[in-house]
Amino acid sequence: MAPALIDWRKRFTGKARALVLPGSAEQVAAVVRLCAAEGVAVVPQGGNTGLVGGATPDMSGNAIVLSLRRINAVRSLDKLNNTVEVEAGCALQNLQEAAARHERLFPLSLASEGSCTIGGNLSTNAGGTQVLRYGNTRELCLGIEVVTPQGEIWSSLNGLRKDNTGYDLRDLFIGAEGTLGIITAACMKLFPKPRGTATALCALADLDATPVLLEHALNHFGALVTAFEVFSEECLRLVLKHFGARRPFAKSSAHYLLIEISGHEEQARTEALLTEWLGREAEAGLVLDAVLAQTLDHARQLWNLRENISEAQAAEGKNIKHDISVPISAIPAFVTQTDALLQGIAPGVRMVCFGHIGDGNLHYNVSPALDAAGDPEPEAQFLARQDAVYRLVHDQVARFGGSISAEHGIGQLKRTEITRYKSPVALGMMRAIKHALDPAGIMNPGKLL
Amino acid sequence: MAPALIDWRKRFTGKARALVLPGSAEQVAAVVRLCAAEGVAVVPQGGNTGLVGGATPDMSGNAIVLSLRRINAVRSLDKLNNTVEVEAGCALQNLQEAAARHERLFPLSLASEGSCTIGGNLSTNAGGTQVLRYGNTRELCLGIEVVTPQGEIWSSLNGLRKDNTGYDLRDLFIGAEGTLGIITAACMKLFPKPRGTATALCALADLDATPVLLEHALNHFGALVTAFEVFSEECLRLVLKHFGARRPFAKSSAHYLLIEISGHEEQARTEALLTEWLGREAEAGLVLDAVLAQTLDHARQLWNLRENISEAQAAEGKNIKHDISVPISAIPAFVTQTDALLQGIAPGVRMVCFGHIGDGNLHYNVSPALDAAGDPEPEAQFLARQDAVYRLVHDQVARFGGSISAEHGIGQLKRTEITRYKSPVALGMMRAIKHALDPAGIMNPGKLL
Repeated sequence: MAPALIDWRKRFTGKARALVLPGSAEQVAAVVRLCAAEGVAVVPQGGNTGLVGGATPDMSGNAIVLSLRRINAVRSLDKLNNTVEVEAGCALQNLQEAAARHERLFPLSLASEGSCTIGGNLSTNAGGTQVLRYGNTRELCLGIEVVTPQGEIWSSLNGLRKDNTGYDLRDLFIGAEGTLGIITAACMKLFPKPRGTATALCALADLDATPVLLEHALNHFGALVTAFEVFSEECLRLVLKHFGARRPFAKSSAHYLLIEISGHEEQARTEALLTEWLGREAEAGLVLDAVLAQTLDHARQLWNLRENISEAQAAEGKNIKHDISVPISAIPAFVTQTDALLQGIAPGVRMVCFGHIGDGNLHYNVSPALDAAGDPEPEAQFLARQDAVYRLVHDQVARFGGSISAEHGIGQLKRTEITRYKSPVALGMMRAIKHALDPAGIMNPGKLL
Repeated sequence: MAPALIDWRKRFTGKARALVLPGSAEQVAAVVRLCAAEGVAVVPQGGNTGLVGGATPDMSGNAIVLSLRRINAVRSLDKLNNTVEVEAGCALQNLQEAAARHERLFPLSLASEGSCTIGGNLSTNAGGTQVLRYGNTRELCLGIEVVTPQGEIWSSLNGLRKDNTGYDLRDLFIGAEGTLGIITAACMKLFPKPRGTATALCALADLDATPVLLEHALNHFGALVTAFEVFSEECLRLVLKHFGARRPFAKSSAHYLLIEISGHEEQARTEALLTEWLGREAEAGLVLDAVLAQTLDHARQLWNLRENISEAQAAEGKNIKHDISVPISAIPAFVTQTDALLQGIAPGVRMVCFGHIGDGNLHYNVSPALDAAGDPEPEAQFLARQDAVYRLVHDQVARFGGSISAEHGIGQLKRTEITRYKSPVALGMMRAIKHALDPAGIMNPGKLL
């Protein structure tokens, strides 16, 4: 049971009466009815890769952990309806592969895809690298099967693209982090498998031009733009150091943009389109230099520069993470102002800022300052500033009308924090809904609300 | 006050204490607080173009009608964030035009766009002709401003594409038909203005091949497919008769497909792509004949053949309408079976079947039988079968896992009908949510639930 009682980042540990592994939605319902009758809390768990402690029980030892991992089949795939019915415990990668076997794309893609589950993706409304084109997990879902806190089963797995017969219960359960019931299966959208994909890395003089560059890309390529990721020189430096990669350009730049376009165009034309656009943006001075991936392996190398940032940063010791969003147009001003304010309260800290610019979502991380010898300040000294850093960054996010949790959710980590930033009216409605659907409060207590 | 007391189809009339026309969200909130204190029901109304009586008060005369029509500004438009903040009473067409003035597309498009309002579109989660590419109104909305049944204001207008900080309240209000609160403003997504648009009408031998033809189109064009509408020869015959249009092909066919592709490709290439595809599908035998629009005006003429069906049918007298959806792959079997069953209970009735095949959404309408002289059966005789026809069609929809209201909502019209088809678990959750957010039941009583 031990691995189920600690979260992936090892920040939260808990106790449980049992780890329960039902094999069907009916068995989940039977377990929940028993827990409801006995007043036992239920903590649903998928791949246990969440970043906010949402799937870890508390220390009371009253709860059971209910794992969905045995309920993991791809039940059926309808090519003409472009849908797949899949059980909650199915690993995201298995679902991607099932779609690919039928010449379809399931576009959700994130670092933990080998072990995270589609049920967890739905319960946290996971984001990832293709949200710009295909939306968050919410937008990819047409229906769900749910076990309610009363142990009843409600299903909306019919694969309908239009159904205006009442309140949107589906979207209420999506992103509810298991606090309103347990998602046991879902009907997800599929897309045509892209015929061509072109990937390029660009060197940028600064962050200021990125919203304009995004505008140019969207106006030029429309729905072909599937990724638009930006990271700073500090991010690149960390990846080069810890992953032994080669610097992609002769000179260093302030920021880098990873752009991917993919869709119905053939491979050669997809590449030609991106090349032509890069030339035009270089002439306009928005792009300093660019490299177009020549092979699939080359594209993977460019992606690795982006995807290994978190791990490279972790290799240097603790850091202070923020998963935030602001309007895309506000990104440059937000970063400039907040960087400056942070130097005021934590002189010398290094900004490891990267993210999904196309969604207005930044992973705005802070690393310890370095001393004259190039060594980081002592961890205790750095972490003593953690709460002040959170406060400053999140207050700035609020000032720019942003969100303090763009894609990771609330869980245990930000449960108190949201009461500072979320409207009391919204919190009141959330509590009323929680009480209406789970009056006994047995579903994942101590999370989100 | 009279026009506010009857619905657009003139099927529902009601009484009201007053028609109230507030000028701001704060005034809406003040009115609602007064109504809450006095136990007066509030019926929100936008353009009053709904098809299910959702904006018409009941006959008790207790309610006020609260019109949003004075709260109608386009507040601001952020080109770099691709968003527009708009008030609920803004007519859909005004919003489309505001977007166009800034070189952007607001893609929601439906027959009543000149008078329906964005608040009404949101409260009914309106569909229309471009759902296949851009989604329903729900998918076009990033945030809303709402007055709660307690007269408080909650706003989420920040234009964020990612925000995982709690329950999805936005989507709960969207499609709730004003029964949970009053939407006073919204932040809507914008898209690049398409550079090219190509429209074609195709003659089809039957309905059976349409899901495969849709598959071919999506695989070939990807996100360029913006409309995929099908209608039968009977629909065309009605439009030609009542609108004096010319038959588009020398020979008649069983069905017709209106396909539109649009997006980032230049006009000439967009047309070339569609022409090439049409040739290929004709060779494969899936398309019997096709005409590509040569001018904007020609495209408008082709669209009119599709868009004038409802009015042409209305010109012939009463008909029995169904707004249904099934999985796209099930459309041919659903229509074949249901057509045959209807002839069993209502011999000779004519099927006027058309709709958004790309969304699985059919307007499956039934016209009176004709006698030997070509005259329709007496209206009373025809309408005496209405309930039996509804029952048969909706039971068939349920058999195919479909929805009895794909895009029009429930309102008063289908309020009893959903209790037959919707899961008791779902209805129970809907009632619990309604009671949690509006315990006094003052928001649009007698609608939806």
